[in-house]
Amino acid sequence: MKKISILAVVLLISVTSFAQQALWGGSQIISPEIHENNTVTFRLRAPKAVKVEVTGDFLPTQKIDTPYGEFDMPGIAELKENKEGIWEYTTPEALASELYSYTFIVDGLRMNDPSNIKMIRDVASITSVFIISGDKGDLYSVNDVPHGSVTRRWYNSPTLKENRRITIYTPPGYENNKQSYPVFYLLHGSGGDEEAWIALGRTAQIMDNLIAQGKAKPMIVVMTNGHTQNNASPDETNRAYIPAMGGGPREAVASMEDSFGDVMKFIETNYRVKTGKNNRAIAGLSMGGMHSSAISAQYANTFDYIGVFSAPPIAAMMGASYPAAEVQDAFVKKLETQKKNGYKLYWIACGSTDFLYKGVIESMKKMDEIGFKYTYHESGGGHTWDNWRIYLSQFAPMLFN
Amino acid sequence: MKKISILAVVLLISVTSFAQQALWGGSQIISPEIHENNTVTFRLRAPKAVKVEVTGDFLPTQKIDTPYGEFDMPGIAELKENKEGIWEYTTPEALASELYSYTFIVDGLRMNDPSNIKMIRDVASITSVFIISGDKGDLYSVNDVPHGSVTRRWYNSPTLKENRRITIYTPPGYENNKQSYPVFYLLHGSGGDEEAWIALGRTAQIMDNLIAQGKAKPMIVVMTNGHTQNNASPDETNRAYIPAMGGGPREAVASMEDSFGDVMKFIETNYRVKTGKNNRAIAGLSMGGMHSSAISAQYANTFDYIGVFSAPPIAAMMGASYPAAEVQDAFVKKLETQKKNGYKLYWIACGSTDFLYKGVIESMKKMDEIGFKYTYHESGGGHTWDNWRIYLSQFAPMLFN
Repeated sequence: MKKISILAVVLLISVTSFAQQALWGGSQIISPEIHENNTVTFRLRAPKAVKVEVTGDFLPTQKIDTPYGEFDMPGIAELKENKEGIWEYTTPEALASELYSYTFIVDGLRMNDPSNIKMIRDVASITSVFIISGDKGDLYSVNDVPHGSVTRRWYNSPTLKENRRITIYTPPGYENNKQSYPVFYLLHGSGGDEEAWIALGRTAQIMDNLIAQGKAKPMIVVMTNGHTQNNASPDETNRAYIPAMGGGPREAVASMEDSFGDVMKFIETNYRVKTGKNNRAIAGLSMGGMHSSAISAQYANTFDYIGVFSAPPIAAMMGASYPAAEVQDAFVKKLETQKKNGYKLYWIACGSTDFLYKGVIESMKKMDEIGFKYTYHESGGGHTWDNWRIYLSQFAPMLFN
Repeated sequence: MKKISILAVVLLISVTSFAQQALWGGSQIISPEIHENNTVTFRLRAPKAVKVEVTGDFLPTQKIDTPYGEFDMPGIAELKENKEGIWEYTTPEALASELYSYTFIVDGLRMNDPSNIKMIRDVASITSVFIISGDKGDLYSVNDVPHGSVTRRWYNSPTLKENRRITIYTPPGYENNKQSYPVFYLLHGSGGDEEAWIALGRTAQIMDNLIAQGKAKPMIVVMTNGHTQNNASPDETNRAYIPAMGGGPREAVASMEDSFGDVMKFIETNYRVKTGKNNRAIAGLSMGGMHSSAISAQYANTFDYIGVFSAPPIAAMMGASYPAAEVQDAFVKKLETQKKNGYKLYWIACGSTDFLYKGVIESMKKMDEIGFKYTYHESGGGHTWDNWRIYLSQFAPMLFN
C-alpha cells in the first residue's frame, strides 16, 4: 500500500516538477530510431525551421582540400519535413557496428537531438550518440562484466607550480585486494582534456570489456590534462579556460613533458603499482601522441610500451622539412638513446587520410635510418575518435605481457 | 627551440583538426558577458532566426496556476537582433552571487549557448551555466583549497539483483591517511540520477569549500541512483533508459528503500568509515527527501542526522488527505519508533512557493501531534537547484558534531 502510493506520488512530482524545474528538451519523438536492419532514422520537431540537416560520423565523409593535402570531413544530410513540422532522415544503408555521434543543424545552428538522452561532451561540444551493437559497438558498451572505478582527483605539480585535475581508471577488484598493477598513461589531443578519453574515448568500457575477455591485463589507466595553460576541464577550474584553438596555448612555467615526472610520482605514491619500465606504458592521440613520444624519449629507460596514435612519432614533425632540421636532429639523438636503452613495443598507428599522415611517414623514414624499431599499423579514415577508440582496443592487449 | 616548435605545431593541429574532427559550436561571440556591475549580456548569432529567447533561473519567475496552487516557472526574455544576425539581451539589473543556468529558445527550439564552454548536464538536459562570484557563487566554485576525490563505482545489490552505479566523494587527504570518516548519504530527486548532486548540486565544490573553511567535518558523501528502474545514468548502462517522467517507474523486484542496506554494506566494507548511528547522515531532495525519511524510519536506529529537502517528511504525503489516512498512519507509527530510538537532527527545508509546500506543512502537523522533534527551515523560492545547493551547504555543517 505504502509502496504504491510512493510510486504514484513520485510520478506526480515528476510531472509537476517537470514544469517547475524545467527539464528542458523532452519530446515524444523517437530519434534516433535504430531499425532491425541497422538503418537509422533521425527525427526533429521544428515546425518553424526552413532547413534541417544532420552531420555526424555515420555519414560518408566528404573530401576537403587543405595545405596538407585533402582530408575527410563528416558528411551532411538533409532532413525532409513530413508532417506536423517533424523532420526526418533515414540512412540509405545499414550502419556497421560502432559508436556514432551526430548533431542537427537547424537553419545553420548546431544543436543536439532533444529526443536522444544519450550525449557525450567533448570539451566545447555536446554530441548526441548512439551505438549499433555487434562488433565494435559491443566493445564500447557497458556490458554485464565486472566494472573498474573511475576517479577524478587533483595532484600537485611542483614543476607547473599548481594543482591539476586527473582521471584515473582502476581495474575491477582494485579496492578489494592487495595486488599491485602496471600503469598505462593515456594522453588526449589538442582538442581534449582529462575527460576526453573517458567520454568519447570510452576507456572505462573498453578496458572493462578487454579485461573481462582476458584480452588485456588488469592495469591502472591514468588520463592527464595535457594543456599546461589549463589545470582542469572548463567546469572544474576557477581559471579562465584557454582553448588550444582560438586562444592558443598560454606560456606556462614549464611544458607538459617537463612536468610529467610529477604525474608519475603522484601515481606511484598513491596507488599500488608495479614499478620498473616493463610495468609502464604511455600512449596518446594527436598532440598526446607527440607528448608520448617526447616523454618516453625524455624520461630515459622509463617506458617499455609506447603508443603514438595519429601523430608524428618524431615529436612535432609535420613533414620532411618542418620543423627545422636541427630540431628534428635533436629529437633523433634522443631516439638513439631510447634505442640503446631498449623497449618492448613502439606502436605507431595512423589513418590513411589523416592530415598528419605525411609527418608519420617522414618520421618513420628517419627512424628507419637509425634502426629504431617500431610496429606500424595503418588504418583507413582520418583524425577521428572512431580510429582512436579502436587503436586503444588494439594497443592495450599488447601491454605488460 | 624544440618547445617552440611543438607549441606551433599543436596550434596548427588544433586549427586543422578543428576542421577534420569537427569541434562543433565554436564562435567568436562573447556570451554570457558578465559586466563589472554584475549585469549580464547574452548573445547568439542566428541570422535566420525569427525569434530568439533566453530562459533560466537568473530571470524573475512567472506564476503558474496548478492543481496544487500557483508556483514559479523560470521566466523568459526576448533577445533583440542588433547587427550581422547577432541577437542580444542584457539583464536590466545586477544579478546576485549564484550559479545560474540558462538555455536559448530559437524559434521554439531549445539549445545551449554555443559561445559558453561551461555546461552542466542534468540527465536529459544540458544547460549553459555561469557563476556570479562573491557570496554563494564562491561556495559553488572550484577554489584554491584541498580537493576531495570523486569516484564512480559499481556496487552489487543482492536485493535488486543487479550491479548499480554509484558516485562517492572522499574528503581531501582520504587516500593518504589511515583515518576513518563519517558517511553522508545524499539522494537525488525524481528527475536525477547518480550524477545529479555532483553536476548541478556542486557537491564536490561545496564540500571542498566547507571543509577548507572548517565549517564542515571531513566526511564521505555517497550519491546513489534512486530509480530502481535504472541501474545507472543513461550513457553508463546497457539497459534502455526509463525516465521517471513519461515512461514512469518500472516495477522493480524491490524498492530503493528495501535495497538501501546493500548500499550501506558496500560503503562500510569498501571505505574506512566510522560506524554507529552518530556517524551516519542521510538527506535528499524531493523524491530523495521522501527516500531519506522513509529509509531513516525503516532502518531502525541507523541515522542520527536526517535531512528532508523540498519534500513531505511523512513520506509521500502530498496533503492532509492524500495518500489515504491508513498509509499516513502506518508511516506515523514508524516515526513513533524513530522518536523512541532517538536522533540528533531531523532537518526539514522547503521553499515557500514549492508545489510540495502543503505536504511539508501537513507532515509537520502530524509530527507535532506525536511530539516528533524536527528543525524547520523555510526559504523563499520553489523546487529548484538554487535551493537544494544552499540547503546542502546549511545541512552539512550541522553533521557529526
